[in-house]
Amino acid sequence: MRVEIWSDIACPWCYVGKARFEKALTAFPHRDQVEVVHRSFELDPNRAKGDSGLVIPMLAKKYGMSEAQAQEAEKNLGTNAAAEGLAYLTEGRDHGSTFDMHRLLHFAKEQGRQDQLIGILYRANFADERSVFDDDDRLVELAVEAGLDADAARAVLADPSAYADDVRTDEREAAELGANGVPFFVLDRALGVSGAQPAEVFTQALHQAWDAKPRLATISGADGEVCGPDGCAVPGATTDA
Amino acid sequence: MRVEIWSDIACPWCYVGKARFEKALTAFPHRDQVEVVHRSFELDPNRAKGDSGLVIPMLAKKYGMSEAQAQEAEKNLGTNAAAEGLAYLTEGRDHGSTFDMHRLLHFAKEQGRQDQLIGILYRANFADERSVFDDDDRLVELAVEAGLDADAARAVLADPSAYADDVRTDEREAAELGANGVPFFVLDRALGVSGAQPAEVFTQALHQAWDAKPRLATISGADGEVCGPDGCAVPGATTDA
Repeated sequence: MRVEIWSDIACPWCYVGKARFEKALTAFPHRDQVEVVHRSFELDPNRAKGDSGLVIPMLAKKYGMSEAQAQEAEKNLGTNAAAEGLAYLTEGRDHGSTFDMHRLLHFAKEQGRQDQLIGILYRANFADERSVFDDDDRLVELAVEAGLDADAARAVLADPSAYADDVRTDEREAAELGANGVPFFVLDRALGVSGAQPAEVFTQALHQAWDAKPRLATISGADGEVCGPDGCAVPGATTDA
Repeated sequence: MRVEIWSDIACPWCYVGKARFEKALTAFPHRDQVEVVHRSFELDPNRAKGDSGLVIPMLAKKYGMSEAQAQEAEKNLGTNAAAEGLAYLTEGRDHGSTFDMHRLLHFAKEQGRQDQLIGILYRANFADERSVFDDDDRLVELAVEAGLDADAARAVLADPSAYADDVRTDEREAAELGANGVPFFVLDRALGVSGAQPAEVFTQALHQAWDAKPRLATISGADGEVCGPDGCAVPGATTDA
């Protein structure tokens, strides 16, 4: 079974939702047969590289609230994160473009290191003092921590077109699947789960998707030769070989 | 879109079918958005490691044909391979257990090198003089050619339990999906294509699967907080943050 998770590194509920999903997955009897793939979703796809700043004043301005209210909202998120055993920096956190991080995650996917990297990026964004925005040195350091090659990661970051189409494709697919927000979980392209649901909801979804029988429409014309336990078809021959 | 291909390294029609599928994929306008995953299917899952031998006498014995007839069948397969631009050794080829190669392909998948490795294994089995069976040194050499680490590949081969469950899971899934022979192609778990069909059939299948609208049943309860372009839900707050 395959679970695709659309999320953004700048999305606190994605950070929390990933932990809740993983709690369910760890207890799922068929967990060894579940493949997890991370898909890109930028909350703010128009934000330019270099346009970063502190979260609290941004929230206050965006929602017309006081900085104290914005601070309260961050603390609330921190409480939810702590309930999942996640560190969360409720003061001094910043935000910015996550496009380069998504490109790097696609590179990491090719290298079999995506799951490692996304966990590290979440921690770095939500729990570490040092910013992850507009600092290639920092991202290279985190890529190396995920087991990636430093020079290769630096080359990806230096070329804005590298894996850019992969990010856009994920985002288009999210829209096609009806995801307006993240985290958004898709199980075998049949069952969706929207939001940082409680672990029990993920448990139920995993069982539901696992139990669903795949229904394939199969093309198997005479021209499609196969090999089976009894041998291989030989066109024009009267016997199998 | 994801295409899963169940196949066996010892399956000539898988070798040919892969080339026909790739011909269609190369011309497919959305090819950059198609992910290909290789799944394990052993034609002879009960064959023990160490039990290998020449193909021609095996075919003659298995089908009660003369060695000349078996040779003819191999030549027929060689002609089909040549039509796809593939080298095919019609004499002196051997066969044996492919279990270790499937285990290695799962390791390669984790390292983002599966597609490279399967192409190399097919070539080695069908076109190279040196056997791929029961020769770990040969498989390590081929793994390195695919970009894998030699020591890591050797460790996988030396431990018969490594990735064994992944091979068995693929094989169980093939049965669940109704595949009795290979190659067996599954597009987005919705459309199956059985056998080494002509490239036009794959082209049609790619378009059909691409055009099919995903139909998700989505769970989105009140407890599942999301972040969207307009911000993140804050439980208990009267505004979003």
